Amino acid sequence: MSVTNRLIYLPLGGAGEIGMNCYVYGYGPEDRERLIVVDLGVTFPDMDTTPGVDLIMPDVSWLTERADRIEAIFITHAHEDHIGALGHLWPRLKKRIYARKFTAAIGKLKFDEHGLPLDVIHTVEPRPSVVEAGPFRVQFVPIAHSIPESSSLIIDTPAGRIVHSGDFKTDPNPVVGEGWDEAAFRAIAAEAPVKVLMCDSTNVFSPHVGRSESTLADPIHGLIANAGGMVVATTFASNVARLKTLAEAGRAAGRSVCLLGRAMQRMVKVAQDTGVLTDFPPTIPSEQATEVSRQNLMLIVTGSQGERRAATAQLSRGRYLGLELKEGDLFLFSSKTIPGNERDVLRIMNSFSEMGVDVVDDTNGRYHVSGHANRPDLELMHEVLRPQMLIPMHGEHRHLREHARLGEQRGIASEVVTNGMMMDLSGDTPEIAEYLETGRLYLDGSVLIGARDGVVRDRIRMALNGHALITVILDENDDPLGEAWVELMGLPELGKRGQPLAEAMEAELTQFLETAPAKLLRDDDKTEEAIKRIVRQVSVEEIGKKPEVTVVVSRLMSE
Amino acid sequence: MSVTNRLIYLPLGGAGEIGMNCYVYGYGPEDRERLIVVDLGVTFPDMDTTPGVDLIMPDVSWLTERADRIEAIFITHAHEDHIGALGHLWPRLKKRIYARKFTAAIGKLKFDEHGLPLDVIHTVEPRPSVVEAGPFRVQFVPIAHSIPESSSLIIDTPAGRIVHSGDFKTDPNPVVGEGWDEAAFRAIAAEAPVKVLMCDSTNVFSPHVGRSESTLADPIHGLIANAGGMVVATTFASNVARLKTLAEAGRAAGRSVCLLGRAMQRMVKVAQDTGVLTDFPPTIPSEQATEVSRQNLMLIVTGSQGERRAATAQLSRGRYLGLELKEGDLFLFSSKTIPGNERDVLRIMNSFSEMGVDVVDDTNGRYHVSGHANRPDLELMHEVLRPQMLIPMHGEHRHLREHARLGEQRGIASEVVTNGMMMDLSGDTPEIAEYLETGRLYLDGSVLIGARDGVVRDRIRMALNGHALITVILDENDDPLGEAWVELMGLPELGKRGQPLAEAMEAELTQFLETAPAKLLRDDDKTEEAIKRIVRQVSVEEIGKKPEVTVVVSRLMSE
Repeated sequence: MSVTNRLIYLPLGGAGEIGMNCYVYGYGPEDRERLIVVDLGVTFPDMDTTPGVDLIMPDVSWLTERADRIEAIFITHAHEDHIGALGHLWPRLKKRIYARKFTAAIGKLKFDEHGLPLDVIHTVEPRPSVVEAGPFRVQFVPIAHSIPESSSLIIDTPAGRIVHSGDFKTDPNPVVGEGWDEAAFRAIAAEAPVKVLMCDSTNVFSPHVGRSESTLADPIHGLIANAGGMVVATTFASNVARLKTLAEAGRAAGRSVCLLGRAMQRMVKVAQDTGVLTDFPPTIPSEQATEVSRQNLMLIVTGSQGERRAATAQLSRGRYLGLELKEGDLFLFSSKTIPGNERDVLRIMNSFSEMGVDVVDDTNGRYHVSGHANRPDLELMHEVLRPQMLIPMHGEHRHLREHARLGEQRGIASEVVTNGMMMDLSGDTPEIAEYLETGRLYLDGSVLIGARDGVVRDRIRMALNGHALITVILDENDDPLGEAWVELMGLPELGKRGQPLAEAMEAELTQFLETAPAKLLRDDDKTEEAIKRIVRQVSVEEIGKKPEVTVVVSRLMSE
Repeated sequence: MSVTNRLIYLPLGGAGEIGMNCYVYGYGPEDRERLIVVDLGVTFPDMDTTPGVDLIMPDVSWLTERADRIEAIFITHAHEDHIGALGHLWPRLKKRIYARKFTAAIGKLKFDEHGLPLDVIHTVEPRPSVVEAGPFRVQFVPIAHSIPESSSLIIDTPAGRIVHSGDFKTDPNPVVGEGWDEAAFRAIAAEAPVKVLMCDSTNVFSPHVGRSESTLADPIHGLIANAGGMVVATTFASNVARLKTLAEAGRAAGRSVCLLGRAMQRMVKVAQDTGVLTDFPPTIPSEQATEVSRQNLMLIVTGSQGERRAATAQLSRGRYLGLELKEGDLFLFSSKTIPGNERDVLRIMNSFSEMGVDVVDDTNGRYHVSGHANRPDLELMHEVLRPQMLIPMHGEHRHLREHARLGEQRGIASEVVTNGMMMDLSGDTPEIAEYLETGRLYLDGSVLIGARDGVVRDRIRMALNGHALITVILDENDDPLGEAWVELMGLPELGKRGQPLAEAMEAELTQFLETAPAKLLRDDDKTEEAIKRIVRQVSVEEIGKKPEVTVVVSRLMSE
């Protein structure tokens, strides 16, 4: 009996969104494919859609139901949208993890925090080293990005070679870590034809060739050399190359450099410990920074996205760790604002403006470059690897679609594949094998809840509509004991005629309880429904909106 | 006895923010100045800071307490951030309103909706017509902006001439309405020296000379001429000039044009009725649009900022008024995304992408120009008017500061003045007369609430933390009747050990009630406090967060 093997690809996160990357590859007979997982990332919540949530991650129940078929987990690099869920979701998968040295070190810090076993995280050397994982032979290929040791994966399967680009840019000189090595990628395609390229799509709408990280040194040195007061710069904590450029510019201007923010200190330490970062200028602790005159001090701080608890936001509110910005100081955002964070970042810029601090951002493109390949850089990757098929990833739908179009223009069979679309890549073109329901998990405090549990929906409703709580006590004869009691939260105290809203509700409810037929009051559901209707009706009349209503009917039985 | 008169300026909104413009000018003896109000605008709420709120407007209590001193209200133009609060706040002020014809017509529509008297809105002809308002002589000077009949105000006072720029750009050919007339503004300064210029600061960070609205016709015509399927374009409903350019481009491409969205239809109608818009191409109603083949149809729709109920968002969700977008259609955002709206707009773009619709936005700057003066245009205004003093307005703090710096560079006495700073402009430089507490009013449903009433704060807390409701019934001996009852909203059902959270709370509360000393249970506040403490403690253990807690203790007395 012959068995047909197939090669499948299934994104569980990251395809149709920028964030929470999680991609599954499988090879074997249908429904018995052996599986590998690439990346386990998180995405960040926002008040509009996920108030109160701490982190968002892919729902991996499809994987946990097939845990026995998983060979290994591979992490391409240490950005939170690729590694952030590792500590939260690994206990559901419990498989060996492979990553390069720096990434593995970050992973181990997370495992340590979660009390998980460190020995399941394996450090892999770059190609030609190979990890054998069932039918898969996986190699890590160094590629430039905005964090050290980012990697593309070569995934060799019996059905052919896959290149999973990971996050990348074609920067030959990224300041820290390995640069883009075109020859190495040409060699990969020469060694074996590339059947499928899964490719980063983030910057497909950026029309110009990406600039090198190394081009930032001159403008940043110039800016800081000319600064009079204290200089503070922020960027992404994991952009170790940028931290180095900033610190060197501070140093060159005769300033003592102080790193503020735990994430940043940790990144630099791990980068130094693992040997990926050398020659980082000496830094001073914050206690010492308070002793340095402002014109001799440079702070490099976390919080470029306006995060409330990070150093940038703290400094914008006043004194932080004994340090305070003043008239004539300079604050540099060596970063771009991720969509959705604009308001927070602008609020901070205005606070600095009120202090008399000069804020410089990247509006003119001088003090920041992206970590992702622009459109012509993606075309270069297509040309270098000449894949038979292209599946865009790491992008919202519009990015994936535009990227697929770019592939089609070159004659590559390209397909827009979003989370939950299982693709059969065994043939010459990507075929849809199955559509799966995929979801998201929310870390909420210390528990993981499903995105569809209704918890967040209720929070949004309370935020939009307010919450009215009604308590009614009935005796064994269904007669009301006392009057209805109304508590309001998030609702105006007074209605439009100046009458207290709660009193207006209580009056109507008391009248209802006095006159309602015993049969109705005997029925909990009907009583609750009637009370809700009255409360909403009074609200609409008094304040023009319908609150969320919770009714508690207590029935006291004689003992 | 000689009395010293002074000239004062007091922004109540719009200075230190972009939105809810409201500026007060006064002249007379201290605390007896006669007052005029310029603009009564709104700002729009967001989920982060003002969930559930419908509109935000300046707190005008300073004015209402001095209503007898107000001479008149002037409205510079019909954008919502200048006129949007008129219907809501006028009943508190009840003064004559002056505006040009188009603006007055929009104001009357608002008054009509609010059931307010239309005859208090007076239509003013442009300069040389003069409105006498106590010590003020006010003239409306046509100036280009992104809505018809925008005006600068010349405010002549016994202390000298003020020019209140209003929102403006120096566009000689804004397609609809009067263009920038440099000679007219030079004449204003020649006629009488300008003591103070209050000046729009929105685009002070835009380094290049602003482009004219008229430059958009060619690219828009080209884009639409080459489109194959249905064409849909969105822009700000009030940008009548853009609507005309879009409609003409559709018409030139042989398409029937349909306007979707009440705000847009209303703007076009008012513009036509008041004669400011002529030669607008014929349009067809939506019922007729469904009969037109897609390649012969163009929709111009509301919702460029991703507003949930506007036509753009409706179309992104599927069929709307019988119209539906498909593969091969074109959607043009002839607009920019206002900071804070990025996520909503991107969500819509991705929905269109999923439908196969090609989305064109303004990333390349071809299909939209701003309605505000850029940095060199502001410098031109400074040069033309040569004011003695400059007070930047219509900007966040960073805009005002940068604009003031620009004025200082030219030797103009410039001052950053934010909401609540009362300035004495009687002398040669702006002097701070007083700092006032200013605030915001929220329209919430049908009532106006103060920003500091705590209503919105409670909503945000419920959204972030969830809400736990505890009901406890005590008898006349302070003994519990039945057990404590817990209702949860916006909280996970299960704690981290898989136990229902409500049950865990109830168990602890029941134990507390059974063992609490009678003295404690006799005290409502102490009982409530103890219950809250227990609920929070169980929550922290079970789910790692502290909910908002509402406790209802009912005491049943024997009758």
